[in-house]
Amino acid sequence: MTETDVAKTAGAKSGKTDPGRFFEDYRLGEVIQHATPRTITDGDVALYTALYPTRFALYASEVLAHGCGLPGRPVEELIAFHTVFGKTVPDISINAIANLGYAEGRFLAPVYSGETLSASSEVIGLRETSKGDAGVVWVRTTGLNQRGRAVLRYVRWVLVRKRDAASPAPEPVVPELAPALTAEDLAVPFHMHFRAYDAPAAGSPHLWADYEVGEKIDHADCMTMEESEHMMATRLWQNTAKVHFSTAARGGQPRLIYGGHIISLARALSFNGLANAQMIAGINAGTHVAPCFAGDTIHAWSEVLDKAETTEPTAGALRIRTVAVKNRPAADFPLRDADGKYAEGVVLDFDYWVFMPR
Amino acid sequence: MTETDVAKTAGAKSGKTDPGRFFEDYRLGEVIQHATPRTITDGDVALYTALYPTRFALYASEVLAHGCGLPGRPVEELIAFHTVFGKTVPDISINAIANLGYAEGRFLAPVYSGETLSASSEVIGLRETSKGDAGVVWVRTTGLNQRGRAVLRYVRWVLVRKRDAASPAPEPVVPELAPALTAEDLAVPFHMHFRAYDAPAAGSPHLWADYEVGEKIDHADCMTMEESEHMMATRLWQNTAKVHFSTAARGGQPRLIYGGHIISLARALSFNGLANAQMIAGINAGTHVAPCFAGDTIHAWSEVLDKAETTEPTAGALRIRTVAVKNRPAADFPLRDADGKYAEGVVLDFDYWVFMPR
Amino acid sequence: MTETDVAKTAGAKSGKTDPGRFFEDYRLGEVIQHATPRTITDGDVALYTALYPTRFALYASEVLAHGCGLPGRPVEELIAFHTVFGKTVPDISINAIANLGYAEGRFLAPVYSGETLSASSEVIGLRETSKGDAGVVWVRTTGLNQRGRAVLRYVRWVLVRKRDAASPAPEPVVPELAPALTAEDLAVPFHMHFRAYDAPAAGSPHLWADYEVGEKIDHADCMTMEESEHMMATRLWQNTAKVHFSTAARGGQPRLIYGGHIISLARALSFNGLANAQMIAGINAGTHVAPCFAGDTIHAWSEVLDKAETTEPTAGALRIRTVAVKNRPAADFPLRDADGKYAEGVVLDFDYWVFMPR
Repeated sequence: MTETDVAKTAGAKSGKTDPGRFFEDYRLGEVIQHATPRTITDGDVALYTALYPTRFALYASEVLAHGCGLPGRPVEELIAFHTVFGKTVPDISINAIANLGYAEGRFLAPVYSGETLSASSEVIGLRETSKGDAGVVWVRTTGLNQRGRAVLRYVRWVLVRKRDAASPAPEPVVPELAPALTAEDLAVPFHMHFRAYDAPAAGSPHLWADYEVGEKIDHADCMTMEESEHMMATRLWQNTAKVHFSTAARGGQPRLIYGGHIISLARALSFNGLANAQMIAGINAGTHVAPCFAGDTIHAWSEVLDKAETTEPTAGALRIRTVAVKNRPAADFPLRDADGKYAEGVVLDFDYWVFMPR
Repeated sequence: MTETDVAKTAGAKSGKTDPGRFFEDYRLGEVIQHATPRTITDGDVALYTALYPTRFALYASEVLAHGCGLPGRPVEELIAFHTVFGKTVPDISINAIANLGYAEGRFLAPVYSGETLSASSEVIGLRETSKGDAGVVWVRTTGLNQRGRAVLRYVRWVLVRKRDAASPAPEPVVPELAPALTAEDLAVPFHMHFRAYDAPAAGSPHLWADYEVGEKIDHADCMTMEESEHMMATRLWQNTAKVHFSTAARGGQPRLIYGGHIISLARALSFNGLANAQMIAGINAGTHVAPCFAGDTIHAWSEVLDKAETTEPTAGALRIRTVAVKNRPAADFPLRDADGKYAEGVVLDFDYWVFMPR
Repeated sequence: MTETDVAKTAGAKSGKTDPGRFFEDYRLGEVIQHATPRTITDGDVALYTALYPTRFALYASEVLAHGCGLPGRPVEELIAFHTVFGKTVPDISINAIANLGYAEGRFLAPVYSGETLSASSEVIGLRETSKGDAGVVWVRTTGLNQRGRAVLRYVRWVLVRKRDAASPAPEPVVPELAPALTAEDLAVPFHMHFRAYDAPAAGSPHLWADYEVGEKIDHADCMTMEESEHMMATRLWQNTAKVHFSTAARGGQPRLIYGGHIISLARALSFNGLANAQMIAGINAGTHVAPCFAGDTIHAWSEVLDKAETTEPTAGALRIRTVAVKNRPAADFPLRDADGKYAEGVVLDFDYWVFMPR
């Protein structure tokens, strides 16, 4: 019996265990309310710091955050992202074959320690595969805080198994998604400014004006990953996908590292070269090019894709592509081969906007 | 020199190192005040979430906890249990050969972040083994908060080495212990109710009325354990038993995973099928059937043993047996062989009461 | 290309990546402001407890801390030390060959959860090696809290690579450093006293008067270390030295454990024998005798080097040498061989002052 077979029958016995949804369980336009709301605390922030080599000053220092007009240190945007993502897993991707992409990810308000996040997803696209045993599900997921304010929203699409290959295919609907956010889409946090920004404290003299479109940066540092680290992170986000936690769930193959773990690791490594990229403003796209396993060593490099002004005169926006590679240095900026395929070793291609003091 | 020999002589050198107690050091009726009081914080809660795949909403969400009449998220009862248990180790089980059982465990008041727990134990039973080189010690342990209020109380008995096999045996006293708590023994937290319970947020539509005595649930999920995870957990509870931390202390054998780690793991896995089991009300019995080691994969299943009403009309009580097995699925509910012995793979048989919305 | 070569050229490509300083980049008298200020929280404290087997009651219990006149539990002095040390790494030791020593380390004020630490270092000594390809840099590092108050100050010296062996040597200046702090140098925290000290709660009846100069204590406990543990700790302190995080950065050799990890581990193990050593008052000297790797098992023993009264009548000071050894017991107090060299297995020789109730 394969894992899928087990999942398909698990609920049958008591009716209490949730086997997760299969492709035919999704309806276009349906809004799925995800369990479990979760209060984010300084404990999560400390764990994030222990799990990833992050040093960005706005998240680390209450003093620096106050100096930027904020009421306190915001938690890293990726903490909010992973928390919300984790909540969607039991309903969206527990029976997924692959996580195919992200688009239109917007961070709409900073999240602070003590706030409680909940999540829901709207099904915005459905398309059965030509083979007929699976289908692509597009969802627009929204994370809300305890006051009901949206703090982030993003589109994700996944390839999900069908319970029964013979189920009829739904009318195919593929949503139109923006290839990238524009600067107008980016929400500068209320009251945030960089008028008295302390660049030496933040760790780099290089501000927005110093970066040029097309510039590439090798982040130099690297990090070898361990089983307990990626599992602790993935549990912290209450992500229940078994493939991350057990070789049994992988037919004896090594546990798969949650793709978001690599995003956080690459973002943290990017400090060395992008130390003033103080907030992630949006996610344009993201591809988990290849799987990662414990023992792999991650390196990262970035390219400046675009620059823009924002509604806050002291804050510019940089559109960055950060590429994570494994088990090889990133000094030669590996991305694609001559034939246009991702180069050997590339594991993540992440396209996002950050705010940076001007 | 064995570990026991080392322990027996360690204190002799400076008189400052605590070698722990041996069987002949216990007196019936004696009350032992354990070191070290410890303040529980959101940091502990975050670590618990990172170490175990817990998702129960009452502990996770400040919003949901307020909706249930509580002043905030309680910390998981097992955090309080492990913290108090850990404090007893240097005085009760540092020289123990085996942890034999638990009984009459009652959670008397929720514990909140910021509260400080201390612990004491009363010796309520003593019986030397027939071989005469060890003895069973029964203690009733109480955990107090900073206001001196008892938050939990349980009986534990352990097999403890004698310092000297020639020491005279004490008068044997074996306490009479209830085979299980009754519903009247369960303390519904003051002000807690489920009048406006948000079941979708909690992750399951299955409430108290939906469970039947005799019903069995395969929790479907599983988790492979790592050395650093069980050691971090065990240190967090300030449990000092060397067998968990060093192969040297095990004669070169693999480190033994603290039994409580398996209890927490099984409880967390039970979410998938018991998502509305929002609080543990009491522990009837618990047997660590077989040792666990890093690399083992834990699965779990549960059986509903009993149902009862409580003093709060919106909260029912379920008596649950959760069984953890290692390195095999739990879908066939393994427990005992034809000869009545625990089946191969069973590592924990845990009998407890939970509260669940009606 | 060696790691050093990579470091030497890394900055050249984009000018954004910080390659760190080399010996010729330091000027006598220069004050270096380190990035990134960091707010310490209960999350860090919980992680510290999970990473090290610490049980000292003053840090663990809000109740006991209040009873000692403090406004709350101070964080362990070593949390402040590691945090400040971590900040110095990118500027002081990222291109270091070896960490040579510590002196005149003074803890000037307790640090509490919620406080924000920043750090700066003054270059107080420079001496090129006879070989001419490296040099020793002495810095006096100060950690400040968010009110600008110094919370600790210590001298550290490291052997740092030269960028170019042909660079001219600076005028050699070797600072005069005290071989040890005197009791007058120790800062008893404002308002702290032990007038109503709860020794049973703290875990030991042995107070200041019970210790004799020359007394040696085997701490009996031991701990095997894992990759993920030392990496989580080292990231928590935002220490960026690559040798701790990647075999690639070590030419395929095992990752080196941050020396401070061993200091914290030895201090925590010292609880069993020094349970009332409630605060570290100063660091006289410290030598990382040999490197440690994941899988090593650490044991520790201590010797009382000196005793002194303090400005607080209820608090005495003990000068302690704690020695950590690996992969062998410490019961025979290993330190030096007949020829005066450190004995096989010794990894840390740490000389410090603690406060203890009288």
